[in-house]
Amino acid sequence: MATAAVLGASGYLGGELLRLLSYHPEIDVVAAVSQSQSGKRLGDLSPHLSRFEDLVLTADAGAVSADVAFLAQPAGEAMRVAPGLLERGIRVIDLGADYRIRDAAEYERVYGRAHTDPENLAKAVYGLPELFRSEIAGARLVANPGCYPTATLLALAPLVKRSVLTGPVVVDAKSGTSGAGAAPTSTSHHPEAAGTVWPYGLPVHRHVPEMEGILQRMGPAPPLVFVPHLVPLVRGILCSIYPTARGEFDAATWAGYLSEEYAGSPFVRVGDVPRLPWASGTNRCYLSVGAVGTAPVLFSVLDNLGKGGAAQAIQNANILFGWDERTGLGHSGFGI
Amino acid sequence: MATAAVLGASGYLGGELLRLLSYHPEIDVVAAVSQSQSGKRLGDLSPHLSRFEDLVLTADAGAVSADVAFLAQPAGEAMRVAPGLLERGIRVIDLGADYRIRDAAEYERVYGRAHTDPENLAKAVYGLPELFRSEIAGARLVANPGCYPTATLLALAPLVKRSVLTGPVVVDAKSGTSGAGAAPTSTSHHPEAAGTVWPYGLPVHRHVPEMEGILQRMGPAPPLVFVPHLVPLVRGILCSIYPTARGEFDAATWAGYLSEEYAGSPFVRVGDVPRLPWASGTNRCYLSVGAVGTAPVLFSVLDNLGKGGAAQAIQNANILFGWDERTGLGHSGFGI
Amino acid sequence: MATAAVLGASGYLGGELLRLLSYHPEIDVVAAVSQSQSGKRLGDLSPHLSRFEDLVLTADAGAVSADVAFLAQPAGEAMRVAPGLLERGIRVIDLGADYRIRDAAEYERVYGRAHTDPENLAKAVYGLPELFRSEIAGARLVANPGCYPTATLLALAPLVKRSVLTGPVVVDAKSGTSGAGAAPTSTSHHPEAAGTVWPYGLPVHRHVPEMEGILQRMGPAPPLVFVPHLVPLVRGILCSIYPTARGEFDAATWAGYLSEEYAGSPFVRVGDVPRLPWASGTNRCYLSVGAVGTAPVLFSVLDNLGKGGAAQAIQNANILFGWDERTGLGHSGFGI
Amino acid sequence: MATAAVLGASGYLGGELLRLLSYHPEIDVVAAVSQSQSGKRLGDLSPHLSRFEDLVLTADAGAVSADVAFLAQPAGEAMRVAPGLLERGIRVIDLGADYRIRDAAEYERVYGRAHTDPENLAKAVYGLPELFRSEIAGARLVANPGCYPTATLLALAPLVKRSVLTGPVVVDAKSGTSGAGAAPTSTSHHPEAAGTVWPYGLPVHRHVPEMEGILQRMGPAPPLVFVPHLVPLVRGILCSIYPTARGEFDAATWAGYLSEEYAGSPFVRVGDVPRLPWASGTNRCYLSVGAVGTAPVLFSVLDNLGKGGAAQAIQNANILFGWDERTGLGHSGFGI
Repeated sequence: MATAAVLGASGYLGGELLRLLSYHPEIDVVAAVSQSQSGKRLGDLSPHLSRFEDLVLTADAGAVSADVAFLAQPAGEAMRVAPGLLERGIRVIDLGADYRIRDAAEYERVYGRAHTDPENLAKAVYGLPELFRSEIAGARLVANPGCYPTATLLALAPLVKRSVLTGPVVVDAKSGTSGAGAAPTSTSHHPEAAGTVWPYGLPVHRHVPEMEGILQRMGPAPPLVFVPHLVPLVRGILCSIYPTARGEFDAATWAGYLSEEYAGSPFVRVGDVPRLPWASGTNRCYLSVGAVGTAPVLFSVLDNLGKGGAAQAIQNANILFGWDERTGLGHSGFGI
Repeated sequence: MATAAVLGASGYLGGELLRLLSYHPEIDVVAAVSQSQSGKRLGDLSPHLSRFEDLVLTADAGAVSADVAFLAQPAGEAMRVAPGLLERGIRVIDLGADYRIRDAAEYERVYGRAHTDPENLAKAVYGLPELFRSEIAGARLVANPGCYPTATLLALAPLVKRSVLTGPVVVDAKSGTSGAGAAPTSTSHHPEAAGTVWPYGLPVHRHVPEMEGILQRMGPAPPLVFVPHLVPLVRGILCSIYPTARGEFDAATWAGYLSEEYAGSPFVRVGDVPRLPWASGTNRCYLSVGAVGTAPVLFSVLDNLGKGGAAQAIQNANILFGWDERTGLGHSGFGI
Repeated sequence: MATAAVLGASGYLGGELLRLLSYHPEIDVVAAVSQSQSGKRLGDLSPHLSRFEDLVLTADAGAVSADVAFLAQPAGEAMRVAPGLLERGIRVIDLGADYRIRDAAEYERVYGRAHTDPENLAKAVYGLPELFRSEIAGARLVANPGCYPTATLLALAPLVKRSVLTGPVVVDAKSGTSGAGAAPTSTSHHPEAAGTVWPYGLPVHRHVPEMEGILQRMGPAPPLVFVPHLVPLVRGILCSIYPTARGEFDAATWAGYLSEEYAGSPFVRVGDVPRLPWASGTNRCYLSVGAVGTAPVLFSVLDNLGKGGAAQAIQNANILFGWDERTGLGHSGFGI
Repeated sequence: MATAAVLGASGYLGGELLRLLSYHPEIDVVAAVSQSQSGKRLGDLSPHLSRFEDLVLTADAGAVSADVAFLAQPAGEAMRVAPGLLERGIRVIDLGADYRIRDAAEYERVYGRAHTDPENLAKAVYGLPELFRSEIAGARLVANPGCYPTATLLALAPLVKRSVLTGPVVVDAKSGTSGAGAAPTSTSHHPEAAGTVWPYGLPVHRHVPEMEGILQRMGPAPPLVFVPHLVPLVRGILCSIYPTARGEFDAATWAGYLSEEYAGSPFVRVGDVPRLPWASGTNRCYLSVGAVGTAPVLFSVLDNLGKGGAAQAIQNANILFGWDERTGLGHSGFGI
């Protein structure tokens, strides 16, 4: 058993962490931190939860005592609170962007602000278990990747490793609106969002340098032409990925590469063109390889709050604590 | 020909006014006022418009010169600007709530603020043409009713006039989210709004006193048990109305009452259970009478931005200027 | 441990049964029957499942051997296969309508076909555990109520028992489209369903006699004015219920009645106006009492496939086998 | 003035034709043909229409007498009825696929059936007015392109003409579900379609040979990697188009090419990233050029039933009859 704290408990990722941790047999949530909802009973804030209802939200991350802290806070908050948590011996799994880019200068270039914790940044491990399982096992600080990188990297990493790609890769991502968080904006205003498909993030989405950096660690990596689109769904992501094959392309062969790569990874499934509700609420990523004419196309589906966020964070915790990585994550998707 | 000004041009009702006025053969929009978007070209703010693209938005209602001003502003604004407009000889059609309740004390009770223009309030005409056509004809200031009252009153007024109701009437209203306006809120945040049906406005929705007041002018009026619900649609309203019949109820007879009442009203259609897209973008209200067991149920459908807002305002303008009330409003609904 | 068979495994309710049973620690699914998908591996038919993937669907209900059979088949099928199953000592939980109305003549009147198994019909128990827990405990054949009756009865039964109602009750139900099943129809065709709110089931929905019959067993029962509406959602039901109070109405008092009634019922929650995603995927029903003016309104929310279908069937199985009724059903709702 | 017949009047394209023709000052619809709805009054079939309500649908295309016939029928029907219509001197605008591919052998390869009217096929003109305006002017038979080709070709043709492309072009298309027509299928079943983004049409969508063929007539044409996706919307298409630039790419320069190309084409607008409701119900196509890193991306938006179908057919009719091509098509989009 381990004790856990959730920081940012009133946001969507924080809520999903609490929902998923309500199933975890080895983790007890002992603290939920939220500036805006401090003082509220969790069961009143989130009446859908079936556990931890009597936990009262607190405001002070500095008072947290737990074996592991999940950080699901606005950008910039993690690097403010993580040093203190780590000093007090608490393992940290950050669901935000603060520790995902190893290099502080690169971080500043991408996010437009200086990194205030370069020391821990250098030690942080990129929390994509299917690619970095052994590094995660001994880590104190895990930078949990977000939804777009998880979906994109799981599809492309095996191909980069096998050097079968050449030229740029178009990644046309379609995301539900919960990915943008709980704060209302005009983009996420229902009358605006419900009637359109909205491409955004031009000219360079913030996750591109992170994704390209990880791919370069896998082999000869192609540049990404990445365009995210909001679609009128709440949960779920589909990345339609258009690579260029080096040499002959055969869909079955490529599907075989993916299956081979993820043979020991229970949460990645390779098969038919996936539907988003297969992944809803789970830690699964569904991959599919198809041919469009003679060209390859890959489809990658996951729940942006699940494998693309909170569920993956719990998978990382399982690895940190030496449990079977499936612990508490054996969910079936919603199906519809 | 008449010249018109639209105040509140960057909101949803203002946008719909400009869209519908782009079809009007007798009205030329000469001013569009918006505090927040002042200085912008209309064609840049609203690239969907096919007319008036070169109009530049202004901020000052005081400088407006036109034959008629459509007021589509936040609550409280109309009673601030209307007196000046009226003084300058401009007819005013207010799409907001400021002039809908005749009695200043009642207004204050309902809206929680004093009415600052009681003089014009007393002269304002309630702009539901199907019920008050002749009063509207000579008016200087028209209080255009909103979507819920229009849908509810058109269904119930003929029955109240014929004294066939007894006891309270349940009105279960379902509205698309554009009814709440263009300002983002947590209720209209897509991840919240897209996945639920949201009852609100308890214990007493602000439009109830207005609706009951109008019904009382028609005959022995029942109290309303009115509950609005947000549904995950952008445009459109369905009111499911459950009255109690005084004496025997027969659906065909009641449908006959409605048809008889609206024989001279081209925008009200009585027939089968209506679909919301029949009314999309139009000035139409579709009414249907059904039997649920031996009890009556009425369905009333309109576009909250159309007959429930901007289109009705233009219908009122047509009456004010003595044109055929169908002028510029001969739209077919979207169908799907 | 018990073994279970799911008949109708390729429909929505069958799929939800298999999804929920994948979490059940005491039930092993040993047979999945589907006429249309017979021969397929379950993991290929339903890639979202995390258990039972290797089960192969069969076509013959007659060959099923298990401790309990869940029947999630088209209307009329259950009364064809249940007698054989019961004879072979298999307990039956029917998620369809065949055994819900006790009286064969009444069944024929409502469903327009003769009941072919009146003997078992007379012995069937109505599977709404919160009202009939003790009867269910010893049953061989349970008629699991559907979504509308579950949502309506849980709200109204405590009030009928306490004799606080008078006059008819308006039940305006809003349902997601999965309630209509997996077979495409023009009503559920996306371009039709996505843009409207669709009232149906007039003049008398088939579930009304069932609901009124159950209420009459609770006390002096009011007639129901029940109108279901399809809303553009996939999962979830909201019933907005408008009763008439006998005597003074006080929302807190009525909420107290509900809380008192369901003190020992872990799946019924009484509180604030509920959101549909609180209940998604769970066996929970969320109830709320409000005042609209001086009149009462109740809101009842559940997942039509969960507490309104498959989850409730598992709750019934738990009671049949003498397990804690929460076994395998401790889900947190989706929240969003 | 001209008289028109609409064949396939009960489908979505037929319905949109009737809706749009209800605004046309020069066209009178004198016949509406539908096998399935023959005998019905149009106003009863389509209560959203504001004109032609009293027209009664007929079943026999052979009896049609009109100046122009719009064919909006299932694939294969047009080549069955067009010869007879043409013989009787009726101009034909076919909204289906039968006359879009000039070569009968190619048609057979793509559609899997022999072309039964090769003679007229050879004379048919491709009805994309912005590219083939002068050819259309004198035509007797116009093959109106569908939504995907219209959106894709309008974006790419100017670039092909200017020889600025090299290598394959990825076209990731997102379409509302009305594009699939009015017949219910499991793909368009609301519970399936509302919760996912569904890529389809692999390995080669039927419109690809048509699009590549047209582009080749414009200049050195790249192959297309085209993948359509259904998104949970009813109307509208967004094509996200990822070409490779021959030489340096500059977004403003490319936008200039598009603006230059369409300077005399009132329905094509070049500007900011477009929203789908800008185009709803109109004959407009909104194009935008952006940079994703150093690579080009184009966005093309239209209403699949409007510029991608019925509105474009009317534009073609305007050209056929020598009217201003904007006649009856001056609609503003819905905006929201």
